[in-house]
Amino acid sequence: MASGVAQAMAAHSPLSALLAEEAGFEAVWASGFELSALYGLPDLSLISSTQHLQMVDTIIARCPGLPVVADLDTGFGNAVNVAHAVAAYERAGVAAVVIEDKHFPKVTSLAPGHARQDLVRAEEFQGKVEVACTARRTPDLVVVARTEALIAGLGQKEALRRASAYAEAGADMILVHSKHKTPDEILAFCRTWDGKVPLVLVPTSYPELTVQRVHALGCVGLVIWGNHAIRAAVRAMQAVFTRVRADGGVHEVEAEIASVAEIFRLQDMDKANELERRYVR
Amino acid sequence: MASGVAQAMAAHSPLSALLAEEAGFEAVWASGFELSALYGLPDLSLISSTQHLQMVDTIIARCPGLPVVADLDTGFGNAVNVAHAVAAYERAGVAAVVIEDKHFPKVTSLAPGHARQDLVRAEEFQGKVEVACTARRTPDLVVVARTEALIAGLGQKEALRRASAYAEAGADMILVHSKHKTPDEILAFCRTWDGKVPLVLVPTSYPELTVQRVHALGCVGLVIWGNHAIRAAVRAMQAVFTRVRADGGVHEVEAEIASVAEIFRLQDMDKANELERRYVR
Amino acid sequence: MASGVAQAMAAHSPLSALLAEEAGFEAVWASGFELSALYGLPDLSLISSTQHLQMVDTIIARCPGLPVVADLDTGFGNAVNVAHAVAAYERAGVAAVVIEDKHFPKVTSLAPGHARQDLVRAEEFQGKVEVACTARRTPDLVVVARTEALIAGLGQKEALRRASAYAEAGADMILVHSKHKTPDEILAFCRTWDGKVPLVLVPTSYPELTVQRVHALGCVGLVIWGNHAIRAAVRAMQAVFTRVRADGGVHEVEAEIASVAEIFRLQDMDKANELERRYVR
Amino acid sequence: MASGVAQAMAAHSPLSALLAEEAGFEAVWASGFELSALYGLPDLSLISSTQHLQMVDTIIARCPGLPVVADLDTGFGNAVNVAHAVAAYERAGVAAVVIEDKHFPKVTSLAPGHARQDLVRAEEFQGKVEVACTARRTPDLVVVARTEALIAGLGQKEALRRASAYAEAGADMILVHSKHKTPDEILAFCRTWDGKVPLVLVPTSYPELTVQRVHALGCVGLVIWGNHAIRAAVRAMQAVFTRVRADGGVHEVEAEIASVAEIFRLQDMDKANELERRYVR
Repeated sequence: MASGVAQAMAAHSPLSALLAEEAGFEAVWASGFELSALYGLPDLSLISSTQHLQMVDTIIARCPGLPVVADLDTGFGNAVNVAHAVAAYERAGVAAVVIEDKHFPKVTSLAPGHARQDLVRAEEFQGKVEVACTARRTPDLVVVARTEALIAGLGQKEALRRASAYAEAGADMILVHSKHKTPDEILAFCRTWDGKVPLVLVPTSYPELTVQRVHALGCVGLVIWGNHAIRAAVRAMQAVFTRVRADGGVHEVEAEIASVAEIFRLQDMDKANELERRYVR
Repeated sequence: MASGVAQAMAAHSPLSALLAEEAGFEAVWASGFELSALYGLPDLSLISSTQHLQMVDTIIARCPGLPVVADLDTGFGNAVNVAHAVAAYERAGVAAVVIEDKHFPKVTSLAPGHARQDLVRAEEFQGKVEVACTARRTPDLVVVARTEALIAGLGQKEALRRASAYAEAGADMILVHSKHKTPDEILAFCRTWDGKVPLVLVPTSYPELTVQRVHALGCVGLVIWGNHAIRAAVRAMQAVFTRVRADGGVHEVEAEIASVAEIFRLQDMDKANELERRYVR
Repeated sequence: MASGVAQAMAAHSPLSALLAEEAGFEAVWASGFELSALYGLPDLSLISSTQHLQMVDTIIARCPGLPVVADLDTGFGNAVNVAHAVAAYERAGVAAVVIEDKHFPKVTSLAPGHARQDLVRAEEFQGKVEVACTARRTPDLVVVARTEALIAGLGQKEALRRASAYAEAGADMILVHSKHKTPDEILAFCRTWDGKVPLVLVPTSYPELTVQRVHALGCVGLVIWGNHAIRAAVRAMQAVFTRVRADGGVHEVEAEIASVAEIFRLQDMDKANELERRYVR
Repeated sequence: MASGVAQAMAAHSPLSALLAEEAGFEAVWASGFELSALYGLPDLSLISSTQHLQMVDTIIARCPGLPVVADLDTGFGNAVNVAHAVAAYERAGVAAVVIEDKHFPKVTSLAPGHARQDLVRAEEFQGKVEVACTARRTPDLVVVARTEALIAGLGQKEALRRASAYAEAGADMILVHSKHKTPDEILAFCRTWDGKVPLVLVPTSYPELTVQRVHALGCVGLVIWGNHAIRAAVRAMQAVFTRVRADGGVHEVEAEIASVAEIFRLQDMDKANELERRYVR
């Protein structure tokens, strides 16, 4: 990834990944949350590794030059599942895998109220990180360990202890997540971090944290915009559907949505047309 | 479907289908074009029947009460493929299947310029319609025959001849497509149609055709808004991605996209939370 | 299923299911062990629910009249996963679902040595059984609760306690598994069972237990031959492959394997040929 | 592949591929016929490219060192489909792709009687070969052009004309198929072949053709045993299922099928156990 702080936009499909690439993002976040939402399902380990991996695979097929940061949740189980998953995602061609220290099945991090957020012991998760590192064929695959200690309300000390333990176990980067409404908690973490390995942040709950501010911290390698693709799509579809229904037609929305020609462009119709012209009939 | 003219909104995922249902559409159009676009691929018979059927299956799992009108393109080959496909889609629980009289592999109907649009002989397609009707287990499954005669530039007479032949072969409805920029061509067709079976229209190229006007024709049972879900989503993602990139953060787009709470609602988090509370730990 | 003791043969594909149906088995066991073996993977919750469900779905598509007893392992996680899975398998058309009281990820029951075999608390599993019963749309779907108490070395008393608790929670049948080399352990269980609901046995480790003897017990409704399809296939492929390699050709094995005509019969080529003759060209 | 004449055994799953590798075959033939049979479906372009590619993908995941020769049938449509498919199969890691000069949808080559066997024009298929060569990222991917001219009854002259044309268009190897009951037809072809590129033979219909005799021809690089894996499996399952049914138990077949321990070995249980021991609990 680029020097400085790279930015990854969430994606739930090859199309959203392609749009992220065109917008200049250095990577996409193949998000379990977004894919769950695409299926209309809560992000509670209900979509399968197969469903997620197929999404990842088709993204890479369509955007071969775009680094994909794959959200593996817990690794779909224990250390044995991690070994299996890392091999599969590496074969598909991802740039990075992210595994988190929750129990399988997990509850989505930003769940409201007092949702269950139980973590595996730090030692067990160190094992999962070690297995992830061993399972990869090349060290080019970036292994990111994600701690949910702050999400689980275990405090800064535990978050730091886990982050250090995971880096020691071989993690190339540490993702630390927070659901505070302001960046204070995460900034406190960053300032205390010894910088052994770069951090990854996901400023969803605290949107005012900009890349500029993150950059100034000096210890963050990647910022993930975690669910903004699907949230943009939902709002737009709701608005357009409501209008079409109210208008009894599409005449009014026509100008507010991408043109058919624009879709053709994203589908790379020109290349297909060229093949058709030369080789068919 | 509802009396009068039912409206089906295009869908490319359970999420978009759910939004269409919430907006009041009587059905969704499980569109091959939209799904191709989701994969960033041209709509030229490149996505497989498996990929399309899986999308349909997950839509029905999420929206069990919503009629799904499944876009089977050519039926994925000849009459043998049609028999296989109709059985599979009926098992998945669709309300209707639509097959079109193009050769496999097809070129998308609104392709610019002089794209290939070659049809099978009317007699051959009558056979495909007959096979579709025979392959279904119950007559509840609506078999829609789609003629691309106008798209292929074969004129009104041929379009009417084919439509009649397909109705005679057993089709429950006839979809007739046009890429004229105004509704004139399609209106001419409708006025000449003898009304043996209801028509289906797809006013994409001629957006000014409203449901009200369609209703007045008296012979149309269903209007399909063919690709407006994905076009809405694309425009929104482009705008939001550009803003995030320009702003170096998500603080400005936060108010313009669906909230995380709204995504939770669409994911039916409450039901999952209730199960969690009662049964987990 | 038939009166008396029904027999289900293991299957790992539509083909093996079809052969089981032709051999007269009343049902097939859509086995996680066999499917894992088909992928060359250990049976440790590595194949995904999607992979398993797709196998089940294609079996039912090919053998619509054959009851499928679906091996859901732990239900792919906790009670929330169970609710999701049961709905999906019921939609696919299975006759029964079997969930077991191990922790996810599980270790295969007949694993050699002192493999991990940890169970969830009986109360937690009662919840999963209750959820499975509630999640089904019709009471026709048979919910089978499987206890691994004997496999885990917890003894008869605990096995009986759990079996009773699961029946109380709503299970329609109880599957009790044992890895003793003789049927003594399982027979002791059966003789003590109060017969509230019928039992299911899987005589893999103790092959001398015949259906006749099981029938005499009076309390068993179903016997599952758990992995004999894949084991038959493996031995045959090994023998044939070795011969072909040694012979430098297939001339010697030709008579020892199914003929091409027999494969055509299993593929239902006649029906396809008939469609080809009538409708293609 | 090995020098001399390499042999590829048919496979329909990772397990059968693994057994072929263990038996010493230099490659596996990821057969559309075998996979169709696994689904209980005729080999008439009914299984989708997705279903076939997933099988291929899981084979390569399990047997990373084993060259996979992928049976792409017609390339799933025209030249545009070929470009799409070749890119996808190359990404999955196959060693070779085979495309044949039949129309999509195809009828299986050994179909009895006067089944439809219609070929595309030689010039059109040259285009498909050219596209396949262009679509690959590296010349390491072997593009095999398969002519069905003999199968279609078009005679030696046409078969040779097509084979030469396909080699000229860039094919790395030519597969020529015959359904004669003796090798005469295929031997005549081989003797006339100018040897520009190596040939591939599939001695299913004429099993007496040995590798030794093929080697003596000097122009053949690969022999494919086209469907012997599934035929071996079918015969064995039929025999075992019948015995179990007749015996009312598995006591008699136990010694005639692979042991559970042997299945564990093929599942690589040792490696998983080792991970379990070190990292779980």
